[in-house]
Amino acid sequence: KKQYRIAVIPGDGIGKEVMPEGLRVIEAAAKKHGVDVKFDHFDFASYDYYEKHGEMMPADWKDQIGKHDAIYFGAVGWPAKIPDHVSLWGSLIKFRREFDQYVNLRPVRLMPGVPSPLAGRKPGDIDFWVVRENTEGEYSSVGGRMFPDTDREFVTQQTVMTRIGVDRILKFAFDLAQSRPKKHLTSATKSNGISITMPYWDERVEAMAKKYPGVKWDKYHIDILTANFVLHPDWFDVVVGSNLFGDILSDLGPACTGTIGIAPSGNINPEGNFPSVFEPVHGSAPDIAGQGIANPIGMIWSGAMMLEHLGEKQAASAIVGAIERTLGERTLRTRDLGGNADTTACGKAVAEMV
Amino acid sequence: KKQYRIAVIPGDGIGKEVMPEGLRVIEAAAKKHGVDVKFDHFDFASYDYYEKHGEMMPADWKDQIGKHDAIYFGAVGWPAKIPDHVSLWGSLIKFRREFDQYVNLRPVRLMPGVPSPLAGRKPGDIDFWVVRENTEGEYSSVGGRMFPDTDREFVTQQTVMTRIGVDRILKFAFDLAQSRPKKHLTSATKSNGISITMPYWDERVEAMAKKYPGVKWDKYHIDILTANFVLHPDWFDVVVGSNLFGDILSDLGPACTGTIGIAPSGNINPEGNFPSVFEPVHGSAPDIAGQGIANPIGMIWSGAMMLEHLGEKQAASAIVGAIERTLGERTLRTRDLGGNADTTACGKAVAEMV
Ligand SMILES: CC(C)[C@H](C(=O)O)[C@@H](O)C(=O)O
Ligand SMILES: CC(C)[C@H](C(=O)O)[C@@H](O)C(=O)O
Repeated sequence: KKQYRIAVIPGDGIGKEVMPEGLRVIEAAAKKHGVDVKFDHFDFASYDYYEKHGEMMPADWKDQIGKHDAIYFGAVGWPAKIPDHVSLWGSLIKFRREFDQYVNLRPVRLMPGVPSPLAGRKPGDIDFWVVRENTEGEYSSVGGRMFPDTDREFVTQQTVMTRIGVDRILKFAFDLAQSRPKKHLTSATKSNGISITMPYWDERVEAMAKKYPGVKWDKYHIDILTANFVLHPDWFDVVVGSNLFGDILSDLGPACTGTIGIAPSGNINPEGNFPSVFEPVHGSAPDIAGQGIANPIGMIWSGAMMLEHLGEKQAASAIVGAIERTLGERTLRTRDLGGNADTTACGKAVAEMV
Repeated sequence: KKQYRIAVIPGDGIGKEVMPEGLRVIEAAAKKHGVDVKFDHFDFASYDYYEKHGEMMPADWKDQIGKHDAIYFGAVGWPAKIPDHVSLWGSLIKFRREFDQYVNLRPVRLMPGVPSPLAGRKPGDIDFWVVRENTEGEYSSVGGRMFPDTDREFVTQQTVMTRIGVDRILKFAFDLAQSRPKKHLTSATKSNGISITMPYWDERVEAMAKKYPGVKWDKYHIDILTANFVLHPDWFDVVVGSNLFGDILSDLGPACTGTIGIAPSGNINPEGNFPSVFEPVHGSAPDIAGQGIANPIGMIWSGAMMLEHLGEKQAASAIVGAIERTLGERTLRTRDLGGNADTTACGKAVAEMV
C-alpha cells in the first residue's frame, strides 16, 4: 500500500495556528480509512525563515519538496515586516509557477449552520466551483516604468495569455463541468472593455466548448458576474476565469457563503509532474495572529481536497462530513462564526466527528 | 439666466424606452425650480444608425455635440447584431476618451422600499460612492497576438497607468471624500499579485494622501474588497479604483443595494473642457427591449446627477427625493423590483412626485 509523503509548510501568522488542526484531522481520517500519510515539516516560506536567512526559501527548495505527493500549506505574508513581492512572489507564487500548478480550484458552498450574508439562502442553494488560471494572465512579470518623477511618468504591465495556458485551464474546467450533474460552465470575461486578451479568452472558450457538446455554457462580463454572485448564486455550477478574475470570484464566492475563514483551495498540477499545494483561501491575518482564535476549517477542508486529489475519496468525504456536522451543531465554532471556541477546540471537534 | 443645452442620445434597446421618462422628469424638475434646459436629439451611437450609415457616429460628431453643456445617454450595444468593439468602442468609450471624461462616478445607496439581497441591511446602512478611473488602466489599446494558430500562440495587452491619469482621479476622489461627513477613502489595489502597475497605484495614493491630512484612508486588495462589499458594505464612504476595478465595484455595489436597474452614473470631465456624459449603469438589455417594462429609475437618477453637475442642486435633489418617495411607496414599480408598473407609469409617478 502506498505511503503518501506530504510536505507541511505552516508559513506565517495564523498559518502556524491552523496547521496543527489540519494535521490532526487528516491523521484521524487517515487512521479511520487506512490511509498511510507521512508528514515532513519545513520552516521555509515564512517571515521567520527570511529573518534568519535573508531569503524566503533555500536554494534547493525544489529538491527538498519537489518529490512529495503534495504540499500542505498554511499562509504566507506579513506586509508590515516584509513586502508582498518578496514574501508571496518568493514562495506561494513561485510554487504556482515553478511547479506548474496551473489550476486554482476553490469550492463555493453554503455549509449547514453558517449564516449567509445573502438574505434567504439555505445550504444547497449555493454549491459551485471556481476554476482559476493560476500561472499567467494578469499576474505577469512583464512591464516597467518610464520617465520617473516627471509628468510623463507611466507604468505598464502586460497581461499575457498563451494558447497552451488558456486551453489547458479551459479543458480542466469543461472536464469538471461534464462530471457534475448540472454540466454547466460559466466563463468570466470582459471582452467589451479589455479588448485584446479577453476576446482571445472568449475565442478559446468557444473552441473548447465544441468538444463538450454535453456541457451547457454561458459567459458574463466580470462586472455583472460579480453582481450575479450576489443576486443569483444558484445560477452557477463551474465558473472559470483568468488569474485575476478567478482570484476575485474565489474571495467573493466564499464571502457570499458566510466567511472566507472556512474556504479551502488547491493549486493543482493535474498531470502530477509536480506536487500540488493545498492551502486555505485566507491569509496569515496578522491582526488576529497569536491569539489562538483563528478558524481552522479552511485549513482542514484544504486537507480534504488534498486527500481527494491523492485519490483517497473516502477519507476526504469523511472530513467534509465532519466539517458539516461540526458547523451544523453550532457548538464548537470560532468567533468569526459567532461562537467562542478557540482554534484547537474547533479542530478537535472536527477530528472527533471524522 | 443660462440656458443649458443637453445632447440627448437614447442609443439602443431599452435606452430608447427609458430616455423619454428621464426627459419627462428633468422637465418637471426644471419647470418647478426655474431651470432652463433645451434638449437636442441625436440618433447616432446606436445600431439603427450603424445599419444605415455603416458607422456608429458621423465624422463630425464632435462638432455636433462637443459644445453642449452635457450629454444625456441611454444605452448602447446589441451583441447579437454588432460586435461590442464596434458599438462600444465606437461610441461610449470614444466619448470617455476623446472628451477626457476621466471620472466615472457612481453612487451605491440602498434606497427606501428596495429590498437588499444582503440580509438585514436597511436604507442608510449602504451609502457610498465609487470613483472609477475612466480613460486608461486595463482598458488600453496596446497589445496584440503572435504565432496565430500554433502552439506558440499568445496574446498580450498592456495595462497603462500614467502619472497624470492616476493623480487626477485620486485628487478627485480625495476631494470628494473630504467633502463628506465621514471623510473616508478606500483604494482598491491588487499589488500583491499585479506587481508593477498596482504598486504604482498604491504609491500615488500614498503621495496624494499626504495632501489630505483630514481624510482617513485605507486600501484593500480587490479580491477581499469585493468580499467586504457583501460582508461590510457599511464600511465604505468613497471607494476609488482603476478602470477595471471601478467597473467591477460599480456593478457589485448596486447589486448589493438590490438592482442594477436604478443605478446612475456620470462620465465626467471635471474641468469642463468637454461635455460630460450621464447614463444609467445598466446596458441596452436586448432580452427585455421592446416590451416597455424596463426600469427607468437608472435613467432618471442619471438626470439628477447631470443637473447636480450643472450646478442645479435644488432640481437635482428634487429628483432624488421623488425617486425615494416613489420607491418607498412601492406602488408604481417595475417588475425587476417586484411591481407591475410599466416604464411609462413609473416615469410618470416620479415626475409627479418631483
Ligand atoms: C459596456 C462596457 C464597455 C462598460 C465598461 O466596462 O466600462 C460598462 O460595463 C460600464 O460600466 O459602463
Ligand atoms: C496572496 C495573493 C498573491 C494571492 C493571489 O492573489 O493569488 C491570494 O489572494 C490568493 O488568492 O491565493
